[in-house]
Amino acid sequence: MNKFLTYRQAGVDIDLASQCVQDISPLQKSTEGRFRLSNAFGQFTANCDLSGYKAPVITATCDGIGTKLELLVEHDLLETAGADLVAMNVNDVLTANAAPVMFLDYIGMPSLDRAVVRRLISGMTDALKSCGCVLGGGELAEMPTASSIELSGFCVGVAEKENVPDISSIRPGDSVWGIPSDGFHANGFSLIRNILKEHPELLSESETAELLKPARIYHPEVQILKKLKISVKGMAHVTGGGIAGNLKRILGIHGAELVIPRWNSPAARKILANVDVNEALKVFNMGIGWLIVNDGADIPSPAIRLGNVSQQPDVQVRVKS
Amino acid sequence: MNKFLTYRQAGVDIDLASQCVQDISPLQKSTEGRFRLSNAFGQFTANCDLSGYKAPVITATCDGIGTKLELLVEHDLLETAGADLVAMNVNDVLTANAAPVMFLDYIGMPSLDRAVVRRLISGMTDALKSCGCVLGGGELAEMPTASSIELSGFCVGVAEKENVPDISSIRPGDSVWGIPSDGFHANGFSLIRNILKEHPELLSESETAELLKPARIYHPEVQILKKLKISVKGMAHVTGGGIAGNLKRILGIHGAELVIPRWNSPAARKILANVDVNEALKVFNMGIGWLIVNDGADIPSPAIRLGNVSQQPDVQVRVKS
Repeated sequence: MNKFLTYRQAGVDIDLASQCVQDISPLQKSTEGRFRLSNAFGQFTANCDLSGYKAPVITATCDGIGTKLELLVEHDLLETAGADLVAMNVNDVLTANAAPVMFLDYIGMPSLDRAVVRRLISGMTDALKSCGCVLGGGELAEMPTASSIELSGFCVGVAEKENVPDISSIRPGDSVWGIPSDGFHANGFSLIRNILKEHPELLSESETAELLKPARIYHPEVQILKKLKISVKGMAHVTGGGIAGNLKRILGIHGAELVIPRWNSPAARKILANVDVNEALKVFNMGIGWLIVNDGADIPSPAIRLGNVSQQPDVQVRVKS
Repeated sequence: MNKFLTYRQAGVDIDLASQCVQDISPLQKSTEGRFRLSNAFGQFTANCDLSGYKAPVITATCDGIGTKLELLVEHDLLETAGADLVAMNVNDVLTANAAPVMFLDYIGMPSLDRAVVRRLISGMTDALKSCGCVLGGGELAEMPTASSIELSGFCVGVAEKENVPDISSIRPGDSVWGIPSDGFHANGFSLIRNILKEHPELLSESETAELLKPARIYHPEVQILKKLKISVKGMAHVTGGGIAGNLKRILGIHGAELVIPRWNSPAARKILANVDVNEALKVFNMGIGWLIVNDGADIPSPAIRLGNVSQQPDVQVRVKS
């Protein structure tokens, strides 16, 4: 027996890692469109040439999908995990009226599983293609000490300086608009998982599928605002903290008084029956995943006018009875 | 008893999360220098104005610190984990001759620990200040399902297009230079941990400290190249894959013949005694953490001339006997 230890004996398989990278290459290639890497995929950095911009402002975000990941793994919905990871990051970038340029992912696994990696990445690349963002690169870490998949994502966007919404221009009386979500997106799942643990039969199969749908990417809606030249003072992505918590991030000293429609989703209704409405408003998006503040000019459907910015500092949200 | 479930009962403490963010704010502020956020910290995105650049190319990287994290947690060296995370990402950005602009971190924890978060972040911000990079933001995820700390990082850099090294200009006969590492940095720790499990008494206290030192950030060395107007054709950060694996990423069809000095570190000597040298060359940096390829013009100490680019496609590395 050899007295020397190898990396493979220590649980790290470099050859398998390079096979995974080979699998990712064509998927990465498929995301090169509006933006493309100016160097080869798999270098130390992912480079993108922004010299076409007059006065570029870059925007960066970092997010995961929380414990929704556990449920998605349990239901073998790995592509959805990838899509959610992209959505949670790209939506943040879109709040700055920026184009998502490059996305990078971090995947940590107890031991590399080529099929799992490919499915996660293909979920990401499908979502990235839908919004013109290129897969820049990422890190695939074999972590023999981890107990499950670790997943986090990063996105860089770019905007012309003059197009970044000026949240300091928000005034009492401005309109607040909401755009429907595609379900719970990837927030509040620690609470949802606990409810499902107490009530394992709560949701039917179709309701479970609805619960686990990937988060919507609000790229088409933001594009329409640009196309119609509707100027916005601020946009918010409704994640943990709910409508009030996330709107407050852009309102500064102001508040708002909002009335939202009842959430018209069978899965959501059943989950919400187990949570106090004030708690639910703080944790879930309540059917509204995107908020826009403007001077009152009409925004076409699916946007809904929810109310107005107010002088008092609180954001009050009431569900329409 | 209330029939409703709360987020706190489900293991997620939103108030504690916001206390953590308050702790981070002054640390974040301390990193605003050459680059600064053009919006408030804690918004959906971290924005940075690059309109001063003529033809900006942005560079993005994503990395973790592998299973070195386990050892650092075990030895209560959380600041080092933060510093390593920054170094692993910033060094990748530096290979493109880019200035590191914004760094974002992802921290996942089974339950939030305010002191742990503060110590991780302060390790990051100290490292970021040393290279003029701003802490843009990050994600702090309470993951009741995780077994330990999850840590990943992300860095965006910027360079004028004309300053990005052109690796396609590399030719046989070009010189390859190395710059010493500060130990193992954050690679090969699954193997190191296995060796230490088999030989728990292998390292003295001072050797363990040396083993766990944070990775060096090669910002000063790259600055000196700029200052002395030494033009480079390519730079490589020596991580997993070793000198040959990482140099090969920039050499393309070419190879190299290199001779490196013996690694003059007591901890490294003891670890290397348990690994076949060919395996060690593939896994560890072997005392050389940074590589520079140029036309042969002298580079001042601590750079060492290791050899030349060759016609044949292999990178051969020999340890000086």
